[in-house]
Amino acid sequence: MTFPPLREELRGLEPYGAPQLDVPVQLNVNENPYPPSDAVVADVATAVAEATRTLNRYPDREFVELRTALAGYLGHGVTPEQVWAANGSNEVMLQLLQAFGGPGRSALSFAPTYSMYPEYARDSNTAWVQGKREDDFGLDLDRARAVVLEQRPSVVLLPSPNNPTGTALPPEAVTVLCEAVGDEGIVVVDEAYGEFRREGTPSALELLPRHRNLVVSRTMSKAFALAGARLGYLAADPAICDAIRVVRLPYHLSAVTQAVALAALRHAPELLGRVDQLRQERDLTVSWLREQGLQVADSDANFCLFGTYPDRHAVWRGLLDRGVLIREVGPDGWLRVSIGTAPEMAAFKQALAETMAATRAETMAGTEEGQP
Amino acid sequence: MTFPPLREELRGLEPYGAPQLDVPVQLNVNENPYPPSDAVVADVATAVAEATRTLNRYPDREFVELRTALAGYLGHGVTPEQVWAANGSNEVMLQLLQAFGGPGRSALSFAPTYSMYPEYARDSNTAWVQGKREDDFGLDLDRARAVVLEQRPSVVLLPSPNNPTGTALPPEAVTVLCEAVGDEGIVVVDEAYGEFRREGTPSALELLPRHRNLVVSRTMSKAFALAGARLGYLAADPAICDAIRVVRLPYHLSAVTQAVALAALRHAPELLGRVDQLRQERDLTVSWLREQGLQVADSDANFCLFGTYPDRHAVWRGLLDRGVLIREVGPDGWLRVSIGTAPEMAAFKQALAETMAATRAETMAGTEEGQP
Repeated sequence: MTFPPLREELRGLEPYGAPQLDVPVQLNVNENPYPPSDAVVADVATAVAEATRTLNRYPDREFVELRTALAGYLGHGVTPEQVWAANGSNEVMLQLLQAFGGPGRSALSFAPTYSMYPEYARDSNTAWVQGKREDDFGLDLDRARAVVLEQRPSVVLLPSPNNPTGTALPPEAVTVLCEAVGDEGIVVVDEAYGEFRREGTPSALELLPRHRNLVVSRTMSKAFALAGARLGYLAADPAICDAIRVVRLPYHLSAVTQAVALAALRHAPELLGRVDQLRQERDLTVSWLREQGLQVADSDANFCLFGTYPDRHAVWRGLLDRGVLIREVGPDGWLRVSIGTAPEMAAFKQALAETMAATRAETMAGTEEGQP
Repeated sequence: MTFPPLREELRGLEPYGAPQLDVPVQLNVNENPYPPSDAVVADVATAVAEATRTLNRYPDREFVELRTALAGYLGHGVTPEQVWAANGSNEVMLQLLQAFGGPGRSALSFAPTYSMYPEYARDSNTAWVQGKREDDFGLDLDRARAVVLEQRPSVVLLPSPNNPTGTALPPEAVTVLCEAVGDEGIVVVDEAYGEFRREGTPSALELLPRHRNLVVSRTMSKAFALAGARLGYLAADPAICDAIRVVRLPYHLSAVTQAVALAALRHAPELLGRVDQLRQERDLTVSWLREQGLQVADSDANFCLFGTYPDRHAVWRGLLDRGVLIREVGPDGWLRVSIGTAPEMAAFKQALAETMAATRAETMAGTEEGQP
């Protein structure tokens, strides 16, 4: 056997992750561009100092205070018993698949979608089944239901807004799929970008009382600008939270992580104010891209998917050469840009305009040269 | 199907974890009794405040600075490429089993041993195989090798010192098992309590250059008094660390966790000074227990296993009634006490003496009543 004796299906695979490059304008991993204010920094430092005084002890395994604060933030009548949290949505998803997926069971999502989903399935030895989104990146509900009835997945992963397309699902989609899955599985509506929804787009939290197999996951990485703190969470039936406790690693959430998240939640109004700015910037970016004659998927998130380009890598590279890092992700020909500050988006627009002009010039030169 | 649709083998299971009770003297989960000093608290708070300024960004996925600092702390020529870390040894073990165990493979340990090991196997869908320790809780190397050759495990978990017995393994044991496993698997020497070894007990770190399938895991929970911070790590062949990267969740270690661990490592000399105090207190406790006529397993850890009692639960309860919480764990009749401060150990000794006297009085009363 080759050393190291890694599982066969993992050999030769590259670890997940976008390149971490040191570039002036980073618009590649959907981070919130606004760093925590001095007030948040000070409050976090005080909270962590306090937690550090007893850091020789294990943390509260049930993180009751944090669950209570997260329930309060979510509203919609969500109680602490309906909340679960882990080190990033990543770990929340892995725990859900460990508890409800695993060998002999399958997980389903609809492509194009978040590229980590098949990895959660793989890491929990869950079979991976992929349905398809329509051309507008939405779901045809009859077709989606048919896939569920045929495949009988134990876990359905439904990002809304979807990554990398930005597409939100209507409540009917969630209802149809929760009913199709029934008591045989769970439906996870991944609202990692939920706070960036456009006016009038509802959250699946509203549907929790109607579907006991519905899980709504969220993260503090995006709206709370805490990607570095790793705090993902979910709201679901208390029986689902209780089931996760069987597979969670004991003390998985450090006392420090709990303290940081609690401090940030106390600053929710300030942090969510920045979300409104980003939503406006997003809408402006979508309009500008369309004015350039590009296709842009409707976006309820803090990013947008645009294109299409015959050679998207050349466009990505052109932007990088101009100090702007975006993401080469999604269906062929499309590119994704995260929404940054107004000056960052100005830099993006200028870099993209220059790159497209240069590409056009090259293409034309190439065409001329190629002519007899 | 019953709702929620938890995997069959998980139904009805209780989540792992000792009771978190509010008792004056807590000697039940092998915590370090010394809280971080004011200097450590101040340094952690400063480091976290600094990290918080960019918490809107994802953390360094490869945690290069932390790996470098951990390698420096371990010594023995260990390089940063040989170090991996995660949220507690818990997560380190789960990642190892996800990469090297999984369906169709098995993990082996020798009982009595740490009760989380079978849970890591279960959570990664790895078959669980259990050998046996000898009466002194050591390993018979011929028998242990025979188990490996028969079972062909992909992962062998060898705690040294062992939990809950405190037993350290001699280097020959590690060598014999590494050779028996060969390139088909890895041998994980779990040195969570490694820093508490008695004079003359070597670390398996010394054997790393000789066995490429050897993994030595450590934690900052015990010697560094950071149970609340959740930082476990390992040293191994760089190819093993690289393999883990395929299954690790991206950004699994928060920027805050990295900052806290780095700050604590800067205070290593102070924190390890406390370890010496605890080793002395451990040796005094072992002697005292033996003076009471009790059996005590030799301990290289910050706890000791003593007994045996016909009704250990009554003794555990007697201690709890006197404000001292220990752990009802290990083979029938044995109890485990974590080593606390000198006053805490005095409280333990008094509570145990009183409990044993009360039990003897009851037993005698019972015997008298029972006589004709």
